[in-house]
Amino acid sequence: MPMQDRAIRTRRKILSAAAEVFETRGYQSATISEVLKAAGVTKGALYFHFQSKEDLAQGVLHAQEQGITLPPRASKIQELVDVVMLHAHRLQTDPMVRAGVRLSMDQTSVGLDRKGPFLTWAALACQLLDDARAQGEILPHVNTEETAYVLTGSFAGIQSMSHALTDYDDLMQRASILLRHILPSIVNPSLITALDLTPSRGTTVYDEVHTQLTPDDSA
Amino acid sequence: MPMQDRAIRTRRKILSAAAEVFETRGYQSATISEVLKAAGVTKGALYFHFQSKEDLAQGVLHAQEQGITLPPRASKIQELVDVVMLHAHRLQTDPMVRAGVRLSMDQTSVGLDRKGPFLTWAALACQLLDDARAQGEILPHVNTEETAYVLTGSFAGIQSMSHALTDYDDLMQRASILLRHILPSIVNPSLITALDLTPSRGTTVYDEVHTQLTPDDSA
Repeated sequence: MPMQDRAIRTRRKILSAAAEVFETRGYQSATISEVLKAAGVTKGALYFHFQSKEDLAQGVLHAQEQGITLPPRASKIQELVDVVMLHAHRLQTDPMVRAGVRLSMDQTSVGLDRKGPFLTWAALACQLLDDARAQGEILPHVNTEETAYVLTGSFAGIQSMSHALTDYDDLMQRASILLRHILPSIVNPSLITALDLTPSRGTTVYDEVHTQLTPDDSA
Repeated sequence: MPMQDRAIRTRRKILSAAAEVFETRGYQSATISEVLKAAGVTKGALYFHFQSKEDLAQGVLHAQEQGITLPPRASKIQELVDVVMLHAHRLQTDPMVRAGVRLSMDQTSVGLDRKGPFLTWAALACQLLDDARAQGEILPHVNTEETAYVLTGSFAGIQSMSHALTDYDDLMQRASILLRHILPSIVNPSLITALDLTPSRGTTVYDEVHTQLTPDDSA
């Protein structure tokens, strides 16, 4: 048991170091030696967890998908909104999530397969949209797969723009505005006014999840 | 006159080389020596046109905004659609445009101001939306500046996703689907059906512009 804990901690330490190195140096120029140095672990420990630079990058890429289990809502569209807004919140506050997203957007990274996060987010959005359809929440003409990719791709761009223009200061605002532009085209009008699309929604959901997971912190 | 022509050609040659180097190596690791070598010009020629690596990058970033003068349309929203779809077409076909867009999306490029293209595209979209408002083409609640940034940011992400998933094969399709998700929230319903949002729109507009500019090619 303690051994396993240590392995998990070591893996996390290596991923944090890799995230930092990729963010500072870019995927192309980053080297495994730099990650080794930043992580302060042995070569053996690193290669036990990761076989190559791309393997390290995939670890960082997929870290953004951890910890996104959300409380179920009566409205599946609200759940979809919550996924988007929580992701925006985590981008602002979690360096590992930020590194993963930046890596997935690095169009100069030759030889790195960036498909993973796009496919994972789109599949999650598509599932929620299909559930929403089953409950009669969306308009009849909607192609849930198309909409899932529109949400995934457009959010990716909105966060990059927010990073470039305000270093993520306006990210919540921009994400909320994006949803206000897309949802009216897909959601039943009767549902729209019941949705919480406010910029603070991500923080609200994060606090809610956090409180549920560690009830002793919420005293 | 010949001197000026030569200077323009040299500048273009340097920018093409810089675009290639930034695309292959990423902004962070690219060096001026590599650009010099790829361009095959003298150090003096390069420094006559560009003072630094960031200066070169800004040249590549802004090349995407050249040559986007479009024929005016009766509908300003159609003109906005044409700007977006022509940009998608040029991304697929023009290496210089592609390099500029990739550079503007390179979130690992420390020290490079990526604001320029976002601000320029948003200003252009905002102008067209304001013109559309003056003609009664958009819904009363629309905040044209917000919508302009939504279009700019979301297109940027859609192209990055299309690049990652299909190497731009589905770019026209994805751009068209994006517009079909956003426009119903901002455009007067009576206008929607009159808009041409088909994936081939960018190529149509490109051919139209090209034919107008060089009538002797269209025989």
